[in-house]
Amino acid sequence: MENERELCEKLASRIYELDAKVYKASGSVLGRTLSGSQEHNIENLVILIMSNPQGHLLRSQMALIGNMARSIRDKKVRHDLLVEYNEILEQITKLPKSFGSIDIVDKDLAELNSSLLNHKFREKDHLVICISRSHGSAGTDIGFALSESLRINYYDEDVLNQILTRRETAKSGAGKKVSDFSKYHGLPKKDALFFRQSDLICELAQKEDMIVMGRCADVILTGRHIPHISIYITAPMGVRVRRMMELKNLDLKQALNMVRKMDHRHQEYYHAYTGRRWGEAINYDLCINSACYGIEESVELIERLINRQAKTNHHKKETNEN
Amino acid sequence: MENERELCEKLASRIYELDAKVYKASGSVLGRTLSGSQEHNIENLVILIMSNPQGHLLRSQMALIGNMARSIRDKKVRHDLLVEYNEILEQITKLPKSFGSIDIVDKDLAELNSSLLNHKFREKDHLVICISRSHGSAGTDIGFALSESLRINYYDEDVLNQILTRRETAKSGAGKKVSDFSKYHGLPKKDALFFRQSDLICELAQKEDMIVMGRCADVILTGRHIPHISIYITAPMGVRVRRMMELKNLDLKQALNMVRKMDHRHQEYYHAYTGRRWGEAINYDLCINSACYGIEESVELIERLINRQAKTNHHKKETNEN
Repeated sequence: MENERELCEKLASRIYELDAKVYKASGSVLGRTLSGSQEHNIENLVILIMSNPQGHLLRSQMALIGNMARSIRDKKVRHDLLVEYNEILEQITKLPKSFGSIDIVDKDLAELNSSLLNHKFREKDHLVICISRSHGSAGTDIGFALSESLRINYYDEDVLNQILTRRETAKSGAGKKVSDFSKYHGLPKKDALFFRQSDLICELAQKEDMIVMGRCADVILTGRHIPHISIYITAPMGVRVRRMMELKNLDLKQALNMVRKMDHRHQEYYHAYTGRRWGEAINYDLCINSACYGIEESVELIERLINRQAKTNHHKKETNEN
Repeated sequence: MENERELCEKLASRIYELDAKVYKASGSVLGRTLSGSQEHNIENLVILIMSNPQGHLLRSQMALIGNMARSIRDKKVRHDLLVEYNEILEQITKLPKSFGSIDIVDKDLAELNSSLLNHKFREKDHLVICISRSHGSAGTDIGFALSESLRINYYDEDVLNQILTRRETAKSGAGKKVSDFSKYHGLPKKDALFFRQSDLICELAQKEDMIVMGRCADVILTGRHIPHISIYITAPMGVRVRRMMELKNLDLKQALNMVRKMDHRHQEYYHAYTGRRWGEAINYDLCINSACYGIEESVELIERLINRQAKTNHHKKETNEN
């Protein structure tokens, strides 16, 4: 413990001295970050360092000194002090987190490395991307463009339903008309369709790389433990309404009503089948405001994400799981 | 109109023929995508193409044919048919969107190119990144690491309050103790602090590149028309609770209570000062599930986003706004 205490005191002194130098060089009217007696400040810093070196109070103190250091006009002095600042930061980062009462057993868990995207997929898993989107956000365009760019299959409600219909037709004989494919264990028609679509999504996800639009696919796949990436695409109401006015040749009121109605329908559908709130960031791996990126750049953004994924998945030799 | 009609008929025929070839080569038991009479199918396709070439029904038909084409076993045949498929898709994309009743005046608006991130910032604007985060999601770690990596200033609640306190001290004379800096036009203490912090955030955002954590900074800056990027960082409840157990040496119940309490406090604060729902994807430019990426990769993901931004901002010569 003596050694740790000494190490902390040394670091605390370095921080205290850095603050003094930065204050002198920046000539800030606000005074030093660490005002008051030297003894008192160093003791405080030692406590912060020992009790929780990654804690936000120590970080805030360092941030204040760093911010002030960056404002120093003299290039050489600024450089030297920032070098010292970075060295101290690095020392803090290297401190064992088990100082004081804290005992981190699982460093990966603490740094969120344990549930990373590229640990999600095993060798035999396919790249399955679930895209939810609000009406008018161009989410559909982004999904379709992404499927073309990645050369993987694209499934939306229409495509899924056509497959279900054609299977029914095939089953009931070539000549006959479509029978009612919306039967499923005696459930109401709407629910029957949902469960047939769900089965189909899971079946497809287990045999091919694919993009699936909506249909609560992310929640369905999670329930069946099938790995996937979930993305939500939206844009501010104003942007979506103006976009629908352009695309569908509607006036403001018509477009507004349409977007509201469709959003509401999505919300209800998602909530009915998942119990979750549609559009909450916590339900997805990534949420994109398409108004910030446009269609093309949104596709690129997702691809940059997937590339790492695709690499892990398809070029196993390159990966060395630790 | 004759020419347009002819063009559409030609495309419709190509789609119909492609479907026939793909069906033959794939040997699907489900039959052709376009079943029924040739005349009827082509007429349908012509209507889809003429009325709304970017519409989802035409896209779904094409997706079905494309999905089937990708399943063809013979490499050469698959290649040739996918080339034909891509050519047709390209033709569709090139069609004037003003066919039929639709008259798109603003193509940029339709493709969401008008409100892109890199149009947000003008030459004199600083790179301001607002980060909101749920408790335990490592959002603070990501924000701090990002500020160090980008070498820009970092402001969280503590840093902002320390600056406010030190200003008050400086104003009231070097020797005197801190006066109550939470006065602001006679408002209650909590609100006074919020408005002082808000003023400070806006002041800083106008003179330096910076990262600001929480404090509803995104909404405050939007209200004052100061360009910024808004990011929300979260992770599933289970991951955050387990992380807090590790970091703070808590048991499950303690950690759960803490995360819930802090989330609730964040929600209340955000809602009270913005009227919005905290954590809804629509309020941010990008939402990241830190459990998918970890701290380091989240920083990289944001940097990839910002780099484009930084380029637009700092290397004006490279950019040629159109």
